[in-house]
Amino acid sequence: MSNPVDVPVALLGYGTVGSAVNRLLVQNADEIERATGHRLRVVRALVRDPSAEREFLPDRSILTTDFRTIADDPAIGVVAEVMGGIEPASDYVLELLRSGRPVVSANKQLIARRGGELFATASQAGVQLRFEASVCAAIPVIKVLRESLSFSRVHRILGIVNGTTNFILTRMEAGADYGGALAEAQRLGYAEADPTEDVSGADAAAKMAILATVAFGTRVTLDDVSHTGIEEITPLHVRAARELEMVVRLIGAATLVDGRYDVRVQPAFVDRHHPLAAVEGPFNAVMLQGDAIREVVLEGPGAGGLETASAVVSDLISVIGTRGTGFLENDACWRELERLPHGDVMSPFYVHLEVADRPGVLADVARRLATHEVSVARLVQHETGVGSAALHVVLHESRSGELADALAEIAQLPETLKRPTALPVISDRGVPGLGWA
Amino acid sequence: MSNPVDVPVALLGYGTVGSAVNRLLVQNADEIERATGHRLRVVRALVRDPSAEREFLPDRSILTTDFRTIADDPAIGVVAEVMGGIEPASDYVLELLRSGRPVVSANKQLIARRGGELFATASQAGVQLRFEASVCAAIPVIKVLRESLSFSRVHRILGIVNGTTNFILTRMEAGADYGGALAEAQRLGYAEADPTEDVSGADAAAKMAILATVAFGTRVTLDDVSHTGIEEITPLHVRAARELEMVVRLIGAATLVDGRYDVRVQPAFVDRHHPLAAVEGPFNAVMLQGDAIREVVLEGPGAGGLETASAVVSDLISVIGTRGTGFLENDACWRELERLPHGDVMSPFYVHLEVADRPGVLADVARRLATHEVSVARLVQHETGVGSAALHVVLHESRSGELADALAEIAQLPETLKRPTALPVISDRGVPGLGWA
Repeated sequence: MSNPVDVPVALLGYGTVGSAVNRLLVQNADEIERATGHRLRVVRALVRDPSAEREFLPDRSILTTDFRTIADDPAIGVVAEVMGGIEPASDYVLELLRSGRPVVSANKQLIARRGGELFATASQAGVQLRFEASVCAAIPVIKVLRESLSFSRVHRILGIVNGTTNFILTRMEAGADYGGALAEAQRLGYAEADPTEDVSGADAAAKMAILATVAFGTRVTLDDVSHTGIEEITPLHVRAARELEMVVRLIGAATLVDGRYDVRVQPAFVDRHHPLAAVEGPFNAVMLQGDAIREVVLEGPGAGGLETASAVVSDLISVIGTRGTGFLENDACWRELERLPHGDVMSPFYVHLEVADRPGVLADVARRLATHEVSVARLVQHETGVGSAALHVVLHESRSGELADALAEIAQLPETLKRPTALPVISDRGVPGLGWA
Repeated sequence: MSNPVDVPVALLGYGTVGSAVNRLLVQNADEIERATGHRLRVVRALVRDPSAEREFLPDRSILTTDFRTIADDPAIGVVAEVMGGIEPASDYVLELLRSGRPVVSANKQLIARRGGELFATASQAGVQLRFEASVCAAIPVIKVLRESLSFSRVHRILGIVNGTTNFILTRMEAGADYGGALAEAQRLGYAEADPTEDVSGADAAAKMAILATVAFGTRVTLDDVSHTGIEEITPLHVRAARELEMVVRLIGAATLVDGRYDVRVQPAFVDRHHPLAAVEGPFNAVMLQGDAIREVVLEGPGAGGLETASAVVSDLISVIGTRGTGFLENDACWRELERLPHGDVMSPFYVHLEVADRPGVLADVARRLATHEVSVARLVQHETGVGSAALHVVLHESRSGELADALAEIAQLPETLKRPTALPVISDRGVPGLGWA
């Protein structure tokens, strides 16, 4: 503390996140020095257009368009990649790591798609590559997984890792339809003009790939994650969920079963007593389940410039604070696990059917389910019009492949009026004395 | 990884937590080696009675009754204090720190009462004293506060940090009375035969003292924390809360206001949309509010031998993984803040009054509140018998000292039948688009 060393920091990118990183490093310099014994100062920031308007830029001379002025400056102690995109970010980060510079990245696409090469390079060079900001912004889930729970054999992660879709679903709970809720999210800045990346589940899939990689110690890339979005969720699903004392959430689920993994993102019915059911609006939450910890849930803002920058600064502090030790300089991956075949995943499900209201329909449906060893826990029937009815069915734990086969058969029944939909049910927290399943 | 170094570990204590620490170190040795490059092995454990029955004790020869065999063995690399109590734990830990041995402690009373001396000693010796397990077992709140959020100026902590009382309150929500819920908690092992420490709020107070110390950077000892327990919570409070769309929770609140701090534990009415309202049964949760992070909530099991041992092992890994760096070897305290006078704390409140059902009562009550600048947000009146009524009053943010004065006057009114009770209302999460206050 008495002899603070200046650590020159370079930023790749100076947009919303980059400028917020600089702001935090300047405004919270005393706090950072107290934590690390060092003062961190941004000396260079790579941008495409140095003349553009920027937030928080006390010294415009830090801006550069030339990556070489960063790569070739031996004084720079650590680099934060906050530019986004795969190229040229990937090449830049690889070169910096090779030259012995620790890197902190906020780039989920980069980590989810190129993690293997990046971490191998970091390992070989003996420097750290941290990526807290790439998943759920200010929620310190990567640090908790890698440090606090590194030995805990986390075998299941359930996450609400996309704030846009969670906001939309929460608004639909309050009565909005999908289009109205999306428009409101766009107005409030929670959704992009083109919301595809969020509402399709692709954004959540990248985050789940990263979380699964860290938790399971095997490389899970974006291609290994199946995802279904919320585009087809209707007020009808939301009402059905409420009647069953559940809520609809877009859930990322990463599971380790008998040494094989499954990672998927899909809308689910969540028991209203489940911690994830309480996550409202644009917030994110991640539940980690392991042997000794049972389950730990981390919740917070999963997006936002300042919130993301907070995670970047947190990583910078961790890099500076643990330089020269072996802790965490290795790739989190140490084994190669296989993916569980898609249909082998077990879960309870909610199924929605629209059928002609005729005698024998229920028996027909029940028989198809039974043939595939899918067993019914609860069933509610509603008239939806003259001669038609909606069936809300909650199934006991079933093999998803068998259920899909049963639903394909049910779809062919003459009484079936619409394509059946099936959503997994999340209700797996057992607390003695509360009577939960 | 290729040349793992054995790190000999000593335990002070070998009860539920100590034996679980040994079990985790043995059973998860591979995971620990992957994270740190080292193998940790318990070589000695201090106990009072080496002949007693112990869980998980593969090698009884590690047990010793002589502290000197630990203190005087230079090979021991790190010590976990899991014996509890203030003396002799305090003397042991101080001696170990002075001799340059890093220590990990699960002892909230020790940290909350003797933190000042312990951290000063650790600082002077240049070794780490970690204490994750002293607060909320497996929930990594200390690591998150000290590392991820070290620079974040956390100004408010709201916590459910006692599982026993949370279990009791959750059971009361389901219809039990206080005595029945307590008996159930005792039967399930969530409450001690003498539950005073838990139900009085004293246990929660020690944890809040530690959290406030870390978050605010000033020494907050147990004596600086006021606490009220749940002994006087009745089904009537629980029902009143439900009618107001709230739940009753024992809340630890640490707040920084204009450079002064307030830390208290008391039952509160929590808005059912607040993340802490969703914490059910014996679980714990801590909400951290800061500038850049807005709010982050950590939830999980706050007690249990294995869960506490998990935090101890997590600390051991962090100590081994960051030896030789400056990171976190300093005391978290760097300033001396004053305590906010008790009556100066601002909060919305719920007030419960039992009054004679006569004309003019409401006016009388409202006048006393108004005199003290306490303003009413909602009021619900229920007949409770012939000529008597219960008033449920929700107040806007009020100074707690003024409210206490108003209630003292109201207690003197001839119409008042019982001593009024006041509980703070927790409803401070504002999410745009959700219409919360």
